Amino acid sequence: MSDSNGKYTTIHYQQYLELDKILKAQNLRSLQLDEEAHEEMLFIIVHQVYELWFKQIIHELESVIEFFEDKEIIESSLGVAISRLNRVETILKLMVEQIGVMETMTPLDFLDFRNYLFPASGFQSFQFRAVECLLGLPNEQRLTYHGHKYSSVFPEEQQKALDKIYEKGTLLDIVNAWLERTPFLKLDGFDFLEMYRKALDKMLENENKAILASEYLTEKEKEMRLKMVGSSDTYFQSILDRDKHDELVKEGKKRLSYEATIAALFINLYRDEPILHLPFRFMTALIDIDNQMTTWRYRHAQMVLRMIGNKIGTGGSSGHEYLASTAMKHQIYTDFHNISTLLIPRSELPALPKNIKEQLSFHFTAE
Amino acid sequence: MSDSNGKYTTIHYQQYLELDKILKAQNLRSLQLDEEAHEEMLFIIVHQVYELWFKQIIHELESVIEFFEDKEIIESSLGVAISRLNRVETILKLMVEQIGVMETMTPLDFLDFRNYLFPASGFQSFQFRAVECLLGLPNEQRLTYHGHKYSSVFPEEQQKALDKIYEKGTLLDIVNAWLERTPFLKLDGFDFLEMYRKALDKMLENENKAILASEYLTEKEKEMRLKMVGSSDTYFQSILDRDKHDELVKEGKKRLSYEATIAALFINLYRDEPILHLPFRFMTALIDIDNQMTTWRYRHAQMVLRMIGNKIGTGGSSGHEYLASTAMKHQIYTDFHNISTLLIPRSELPALPKNIKEQLSFHFTAE
Amino acid sequence: MSDSNGKYTTIHYQQYLELDKILKAQNLRSLQLDEEAHEEMLFIIVHQVYELWFKQIIHELESVIEFFEDKEIIESSLGVAISRLNRVETILKLMVEQIGVMETMTPLDFLDFRNYLFPASGFQSFQFRAVECLLGLPNEQRLTYHGHKYSSVFPEEQQKALDKIYEKGTLLDIVNAWLERTPFLKLDGFDFLEMYRKALDKMLENENKAILASEYLTEKEKEMRLKMVGSSDTYFQSILDRDKHDELVKEGKKRLSYEATIAALFINLYRDEPILHLPFRFMTALIDIDNQMTTWRYRHAQMVLRMIGNKIGTGGSSGHEYLASTAMKHQIYTDFHNISTLLIPRSELPALPKNIKEQLSFHFTAE
Amino acid sequence: MSDSNGKYTTIHYQQYLELDKILKAQNLRSLQLDEEAHEEMLFIIVHQVYELWFKQIIHELESVIEFFEDKEIIESSLGVAISRLNRVETILKLMVEQIGVMETMTPLDFLDFRNYLFPASGFQSFQFRAVECLLGLPNEQRLTYHGHKYSSVFPEEQQKALDKIYEKGTLLDIVNAWLERTPFLKLDGFDFLEMYRKALDKMLENENKAILASEYLTEKEKEMRLKMVGSSDTYFQSILDRDKHDELVKEGKKRLSYEATIAALFINLYRDEPILHLPFRFMTALIDIDNQMTTWRYRHAQMVLRMIGNKIGTGGSSGHEYLASTAMKHQIYTDFHNISTLLIPRSELPALPKNIKEQLSFHFTAE
Repeated sequence: MSDSNGKYTTIHYQQYLELDKILKAQNLRSLQLDEEAHEEMLFIIVHQVYELWFKQIIHELESVIEFFEDKEIIESSLGVAISRLNRVETILKLMVEQIGVMETMTPLDFLDFRNYLFPASGFQSFQFRAVECLLGLPNEQRLTYHGHKYSSVFPEEQQKALDKIYEKGTLLDIVNAWLERTPFLKLDGFDFLEMYRKALDKMLENENKAILASEYLTEKEKEMRLKMVGSSDTYFQSILDRDKHDELVKEGKKRLSYEATIAALFINLYRDEPILHLPFRFMTALIDIDNQMTTWRYRHAQMVLRMIGNKIGTGGSSGHEYLASTAMKHQIYTDFHNISTLLIPRSELPALPKNIKEQLSFHFTAE
Repeated sequence: MSDSNGKYTTIHYQQYLELDKILKAQNLRSLQLDEEAHEEMLFIIVHQVYELWFKQIIHELESVIEFFEDKEIIESSLGVAISRLNRVETILKLMVEQIGVMETMTPLDFLDFRNYLFPASGFQSFQFRAVECLLGLPNEQRLTYHGHKYSSVFPEEQQKALDKIYEKGTLLDIVNAWLERTPFLKLDGFDFLEMYRKALDKMLENENKAILASEYLTEKEKEMRLKMVGSSDTYFQSILDRDKHDELVKEGKKRLSYEATIAALFINLYRDEPILHLPFRFMTALIDIDNQMTTWRYRHAQMVLRMIGNKIGTGGSSGHEYLASTAMKHQIYTDFHNISTLLIPRSELPALPKNIKEQLSFHFTAE
Repeated sequence: MSDSNGKYTTIHYQQYLELDKILKAQNLRSLQLDEEAHEEMLFIIVHQVYELWFKQIIHELESVIEFFEDKEIIESSLGVAISRLNRVETILKLMVEQIGVMETMTPLDFLDFRNYLFPASGFQSFQFRAVECLLGLPNEQRLTYHGHKYSSVFPEEQQKALDKIYEKGTLLDIVNAWLERTPFLKLDGFDFLEMYRKALDKMLENENKAILASEYLTEKEKEMRLKMVGSSDTYFQSILDRDKHDELVKEGKKRLSYEATIAALFINLYRDEPILHLPFRFMTALIDIDNQMTTWRYRHAQMVLRMIGNKIGTGGSSGHEYLASTAMKHQIYTDFHNISTLLIPRSELPALPKNIKEQLSFHFTAE
Repeated sequence: MSDSNGKYTTIHYQQYLELDKILKAQNLRSLQLDEEAHEEMLFIIVHQVYELWFKQIIHELESVIEFFEDKEIIESSLGVAISRLNRVETILKLMVEQIGVMETMTPLDFLDFRNYLFPASGFQSFQFRAVECLLGLPNEQRLTYHGHKYSSVFPEEQQKALDKIYEKGTLLDIVNAWLERTPFLKLDGFDFLEMYRKALDKMLENENKAILASEYLTEKEKEMRLKMVGSSDTYFQSILDRDKHDELVKEGKKRLSYEATIAALFINLYRDEPILHLPFRFMTALIDIDNQMTTWRYRHAQMVLRMIGNKIGTGGSSGHEYLASTAMKHQIYTDFHNISTLLIPRSELPALPKNIKEQLSFHFTAE
């Protein structure tokens, strides 16, 4: 088709997907340098598929970050933002499954062409690093690899591109700022923090009572458990103490600001209020992505262990141990995970004052 | 623990889960009647797990239906209702995967104890039928099995229980009623249907133009395609024609009422409006459940084919063919699936009048 | 690295994977012709990933077919062949999961760029057709699409390439020939077919007795069931009747030859014998692939229904119905699935004569 | 049905599965003690399903261990043993997926009934411990939990049952013994270890040459890499040194004996030989199970983090950290994973002498 503005040209599947490029980009090193190693095709294609998914994930994350730039528009875009984050999670799940495809290659198969890859390595994937940066993995939190900065393997231009992501604001930064803007924490004589503090005290008191009254526990066990509730108490105090919080932020042990943390807690506790439901889902989507990312890291570490044992990787990494520890330590949204430790049961949750409740509601069904 | 109101008694994992009952309920017929067939344990456990999931699904579906009974309360419960339907979908996905566990049993393994099961059969699962009923599978749509009513294998009491689900109102009934209550279709001089009709005409006109202008298609192909757009047009007319719609309902070809269909269309088209976002997700959750149910039916049919080929099942069913056709014909939310055929591109979608738009919005971020 | 024979050149991840090609092959039509439709990126990448997996599947299937060309070498390659088929299954499973990624795009999102794709269509995927041909989907069994031959959308060269697959021999052809070569069916006074026939008669007799003796069934039900066993009997006769079998082959209702079918049955019944274990796993792998292919077809049909309802696809297909019926009718290894109907319980399976049993064994543990 | 030996009694689905027990074993504590917490049903059912799967896994593992008891019979049972281990893997995969079902419960939902569970805890699952023991998790390797022995939460009788598993021989013990019996390592003038040693030296020499000749690496990088090859060399020496090996076994750093390790290496290197193919698959199945177990542990730890953050679990565990570290440290078949580090490329693998090769072959296709 074609009309005045050129909109209606036609296109064929083959051209549209540029299959000439895509399907001719598998050049086996083994074939070039020696004899074809059957499994090298799989190795190449698996990595190319990963890179395609990385591109898609970057496309989604950038679009979500963009939504937050225009502070006016974010509410009406929250639904779309959640859908896109859910899509990222779905893709990550598929990427976790895909490790099973790679695992159909045995270590012996890999040895047939492993030497030819030197020194190519997954550490050289620019897009993977971009995904980490966009999500907000802090540079200081990164485990180093043979003492080099993670980005040192990239050309200068790409290093700058990665730095720019941090400058512009990662998803975590932007979510933090958005949470800080929550308007409901102190309104019309309603003080969320004070209310929460009281409910908390009551809950811990009840837990203590329960332990003391238990017929099942020995005295020693009771003692141990009471100590635990005590340390729970200490923990709770830290969240109510702005100075302590700020200190932890400085030490890199927390990422969300004090205000953002309180807002996140408020949303979690009252997420059944219609207006808080999408914000709650948004935070859940971030946790889900974080979980899938670390699961992928974990499964990837397993796969590397299986494939090369403790030998060095082609890129010179110390392999399995390094990767396995990133699974544990490169979690990004830990502060959101830890909100759970601050929750109190609905039954102990004070009802919101009527005027606040009305501000948080809307009605789909008119009467 | 124990206090005045008895709340704080203690409990052990083993008792809490009633493992004495659960783990002693695997009595192999092969062992009782002859020699243990190793795979009978798997057969029993797989089915028991399915029944446990059915119980959970029923628990969720009933709770969602209950939400809708109180018309006042539904908006604030919509988020929770969606979460529970999403949970049902997650369980159904697991149930689909579980077929892979059953498939680790080979046909020859099954033969080792198949004779002892006679005439037990999956057709005798009361809970599975209850799930079908709660979702809204209409009795008339059911394929019969050797000419008997599906519920004839159950004792009278259970037959009554199934009938009662229909009397009380299935999820589909209740969703239909809820959609009919949508307050936004005709408000303050805004007439959704009229607006939609105009946009539709423009869109079809554009499609016709595109076909005629194509350099790629032969004259014959153009003709064919124009005819298709024509029949598309005819199809669109049917939705705008209340009488035609009601006729299709009478013939059992549609399930949603005319009003409910228009409301569903409206929500789909304007789901980016904050207040319509949860209703949109709710409908999507129903489609997702429907898809997982039919996927399960399909995979189950595959498994039966693999296990017993075309031989009769232990319950006397004609097996694979019957099951495979239920996958295609026991879809329940077909009307929601078909909403897609009524959509028009966002670019051709008229903007909502300002007063309507404000009614559909709420603001999380205060200024 | 580099040595005399050029083996040790170095390579970088980026070049090795040709990411310049791969990551620059996403040219959004919406962006070219109008305004970027956010979801078009997903649409392109999902399809490109599919094409990459198709390439991998073709790579594996061709290599397996090649193994069978050298009749001498096949035994020692059977293990490798099974691994590669299992890999194909794993990839297909991932491809089924991947439909969930596509489904994160809603019908309304799709409408934002659907018009620009005209007349590109998945029907134009050459590699998908190549996979079908390599597996052995017979041309006569194919459902036609608007009356055209499936390959008519391809340039002549590609049509020839598809024809050539059939000429050279599909996986099914080659498996059939391999089964016909099974050396164990009639050896040293051992006649498998005769032995099987006797065991069968005994088994059916027992089933009849069981039905007659049942206290649970009504007379009418017994009658019905006896009739079923009768038709089971008739069915069994057909496999023992070479002429009937050949007739069904001629009518396209069976694909395996008489000899191959008997061999497949033998392997299934005595697959616990060490030498028959890998052949059994090989056949199982083919069934698994067949199942995943049809599951993919089914899920794909579901996705199309969800995305465009009953409207015509961009390639002019009648959409959902066509695709859903290929799920049911484009099954290829139906004859293997149906072997289940011919099995008899191990308890009724005659022990192999000692001399045969020794020929089928080998010992890993020396004494 | 019923005949003289009672074989043909009939049975109904409901009775066969003992659904009266199974479906009445969900007694919500919240309902008993206070008000029904909707999500407690999910919590109970998810755990009951896990226990059912544990029972199935135990059923399979015990049967495999039994195969190995009769040393004569194991070869002909190897195929069946592999199938059963593959089934265990499939079930474990499902169990990993099932965590996603639990995650549909939010932390706030859990708080609604968490207090009533005290002090029930997953640590009290006897069957889970039995699975760990059967697989061969050594008691010394277990991380302790609040300083108590893992089994101290069980009644004495169950503690004894767990001890007995170790006494009788775990799967790992039995596999070790089986590998030690491998008859092929030193036969007819063929000395596997000597042959392997030579091939190894040649391979490491080549790697060194490749590094030195590289144009890509800086001098410093070359130095680093040469050092790595050196430590690789040192590593290889350890496997060839029986004394060093035995020392590592004593320190609990290795589990397989020297002989078993060499046998496992031999099978891995020559697994394309028909007779070694099933033994290779058997070892692969063990690695797969190990991977799924640790993946489940990892995902379980993630779920606990999400659900209760760093708060203590109801059983008094320190929660997430403890569980996450078991994922890393409770791997059982590490020695098999590490075989990969000992492999050498097929191209450098010496061909087996003709007489050995013949002993390893069998022919399915007669000439």
